[in-house]
Amino acid sequence: MMHHNDTICALSTPQGSGAIGVIRISGPEAINMVHFLFEGRNLEIQKGQSLHFGKFVDDNEIIDEVLVSLFKAPNSYTGEDIVEISCHGSSYILTRVLNALINRGARLAKPGEFTMRAFSNGKMDLAQAEAVADLIASESKAAHHLALNQMRGGFSEKINQLREELIHFTSLIELELDFSEEDVEFADRDDLKALVNHLIEVINGLIDSFSTGNALKNGIPVAIIGQPNVGKSTLLNALLNEDKAIVSEIAGTTRDSIEDEVKIGGVSFRFIDTAGIRETEDIVENIGIKRTYQMLDKATVILYLVDIVEDSATMISESVLAIQKRIEASDKTLILLANKIDKLQVSEHVIPKALNDKIPEGIKTIFLSTGQKQNIQGLEAALKALAEEKLKGANEVLVSNARHYEALKKAGEALQRVADGLEQNITGDFLAMDIRQSLFYLGEITGTIEIDRDILGSIFSKFCIGK
Amino acid sequence: MMHHNDTICALSTPQGSGAIGVIRISGPEAINMVHFLFEGRNLEIQKGQSLHFGKFVDDNEIIDEVLVSLFKAPNSYTGEDIVEISCHGSSYILTRVLNALINRGARLAKPGEFTMRAFSNGKMDLAQAEAVADLIASESKAAHHLALNQMRGGFSEKINQLREELIHFTSLIELELDFSEEDVEFADRDDLKALVNHLIEVINGLIDSFSTGNALKNGIPVAIIGQPNVGKSTLLNALLNEDKAIVSEIAGTTRDSIEDEVKIGGVSFRFIDTAGIRETEDIVENIGIKRTYQMLDKATVILYLVDIVEDSATMISESVLAIQKRIEASDKTLILLANKIDKLQVSEHVIPKALNDKIPEGIKTIFLSTGQKQNIQGLEAALKALAEEKLKGANEVLVSNARHYEALKKAGEALQRVADGLEQNITGDFLAMDIRQSLFYLGEITGTIEIDRDILGSIFSKFCIGK
Repeated sequence: MMHHNDTICALSTPQGSGAIGVIRISGPEAINMVHFLFEGRNLEIQKGQSLHFGKFVDDNEIIDEVLVSLFKAPNSYTGEDIVEISCHGSSYILTRVLNALINRGARLAKPGEFTMRAFSNGKMDLAQAEAVADLIASESKAAHHLALNQMRGGFSEKINQLREELIHFTSLIELELDFSEEDVEFADRDDLKALVNHLIEVINGLIDSFSTGNALKNGIPVAIIGQPNVGKSTLLNALLNEDKAIVSEIAGTTRDSIEDEVKIGGVSFRFIDTAGIRETEDIVENIGIKRTYQMLDKATVILYLVDIVEDSATMISESVLAIQKRIEASDKTLILLANKIDKLQVSEHVIPKALNDKIPEGIKTIFLSTGQKQNIQGLEAALKALAEEKLKGANEVLVSNARHYEALKKAGEALQRVADGLEQNITGDFLAMDIRQSLFYLGEITGTIEIDRDILGSIFSKFCIGK
Repeated sequence: MMHHNDTICALSTPQGSGAIGVIRISGPEAINMVHFLFEGRNLEIQKGQSLHFGKFVDDNEIIDEVLVSLFKAPNSYTGEDIVEISCHGSSYILTRVLNALINRGARLAKPGEFTMRAFSNGKMDLAQAEAVADLIASESKAAHHLALNQMRGGFSEKINQLREELIHFTSLIELELDFSEEDVEFADRDDLKALVNHLIEVINGLIDSFSTGNALKNGIPVAIIGQPNVGKSTLLNALLNEDKAIVSEIAGTTRDSIEDEVKIGGVSFRFIDTAGIRETEDIVENIGIKRTYQMLDKATVILYLVDIVEDSATMISESVLAIQKRIEASDKTLILLANKIDKLQVSEHVIPKALNDKIPEGIKTIFLSTGQKQNIQGLEAALKALAEEKLKGANEVLVSNARHYEALKKAGEALQRVADGLEQNITGDFLAMDIRQSLFYLGEITGTIEIDRDILGSIFSKFCIGK
């Protein structure tokens, strides 16, 4: 636990003008500073978690009529004294308020610095702190669910459990070490092997959960491939238009940055590299070319679009089987989209044998027309089913953070060395080194061990200012 | 005073993701609604102006850990029960919270609807309500000062004073009317004339203050004119670069929308129609052309840029005098900028006689070099002096709102008819009609009279949502 003797301030609401702008101040001088700039009740004698209306006055000039929320250490977000000033959201006023605080000795907070203080004052561990940033960035039900669980300590609990078991394991090994002169084996080596294998299994389970965790957090990557003019962009537009997951006046801002993302069943589907798709004019004709393979490799879901009326059975079956071969070892999902059924005025419910025969055995196929928006809902239902399958796992503990994933991999590797050492009857002191390594990596996740300042800096730099 | 029986909600902080997002709810069901969605203290039995930490839960799902501020009617912004929910600023969370409130029967607030309720519940008059929007939009010291004064009731007080004097005047006239059968004159007509002339004078003073008020609120319009390549855009860039009025991390957003605005001495200088200037290649050669005149007409400050080294004395004096003639009846300020003194490596402090002689008598001139950024500060000092002169008036009551200006003009016209009527010895009942008109127009400013719903709608539609 560090002690911060400076007081930090920042605008905590998004930039731009709005009805309300909130400025947050944290540190030993927070209350005293605002007290000097506030005309209203005497803030220095107020209770924590209290609300006060008054004027913010700087240099004898009224800057604004404000609402002040007071929190006293340690009962606050950062664990320090915190004051939140709710002003009219004019950039002029917010700047004046910040400048007045800076003139009284506060300094502008760095990104994530409030949360960093919460972490270093023991209000939350590192994994929980990281989840705060994820929560703010969350844009789908799944990402939100993951981040909130992690923020509320679900993931940390799992890691701490692992650490405890590992510490128990260490104590057994170290007991052996203490009496090594006497050549006594206190821990039964078979029990030790069973324990370490169990731990490796748990860690591997967590490592494996990263693909789901990451997909839920960042969206499931989808590739739409197919010949030029087969309807790829029409399909994408149809899906984007149908994006009813969030119907809201306030979604507008985010919309721009996630143009090629569709939320279905609470999960984001992220259409990868669509610019690339549009450029790649001849990917299916030359099904072997690298670019298509790259797209297949990046995607979890592959939507392969064919013109079921014009394309020959041979062409379809050859290309589909080539794609399937490429992805067979993975858990990728291929869906064949048999497009342009409107040409024959065919309903998706009654597909003529001639069309059906063009589909190779055992390939999941949806008959549709992207141009006439016919059976887009069929595709959506298929994607929704995929989303639901992913979401099923969301109530378990999932790894969704690349830093945690890396740390778990290293912890797992160290433990594997322990398991190998046990097999080879290596002495306890060598085993203890690897166990300590493993504990170190697990500790890095929750910040139980002392974390390098650079790593902390890089974690919190991804936060927004004011949090 | 209207009674609103529905409950409204809106995001009150700017859109986009940030550390904090605040959702505001106002109306009879505000507390009850949030109570059902909040896990923490029982909100229904809490005091007003209190702060509560807990979980926002919808459909058995935790949406966020939130801070709830409670305000009870009539002690709130709108005069109704208000709840403010401070969430993590994720658009997903904010949307979920709004949707949950809407599902419980709230409806999304229209722009300015909270303030409209504050007005209709008698928490502020119409001029004060309008100032709230001005305050949020304020981007300079002057605009902020004006808006805050008006919000705090300074302007309304002046209008109410006027109304009272007018009502007193009416009572004198109406007393005369009541006894008109008896042909008695209770009010001395000379006293009445003096009173009405005094009122007209006050109203005209307010009307005249609009040019200053408007300049302080919206910026002083400045035209930079001069021959092509004389350094107009270089000058503008130099001024924009020197814009140190607001040095702040948070000013960035606003910056884009006000590119051609410079704050000097707390006042905005707005460079008008610079695109037009760039197009107009030959404005000074053909000094008579309409476009230049239009620019002169729009501007309050005219910066006329000449190449003091190359341009002939005749050319300079002819064009300057033409400009001066055009603006002579106005209160516009012309500053001649004698540019390119770096060509002769001349200091602005020691100007050779040959250059000085090119300047016509009595023209305010600044010698500078826009290219070498030499003596840009001389021009800034001149603009600052202008700003200070404008600001001097800012402590008096100024009209800065076009709607108020129009209403005052109509009130003044009606009073002028009263004055004329008194001169022509028109009977009291005719006078009373015009006095009532005048009272009506003054009442429109503060909303003392009943305001047309369309007018109200148009006033509040300029607000942001959530205020």
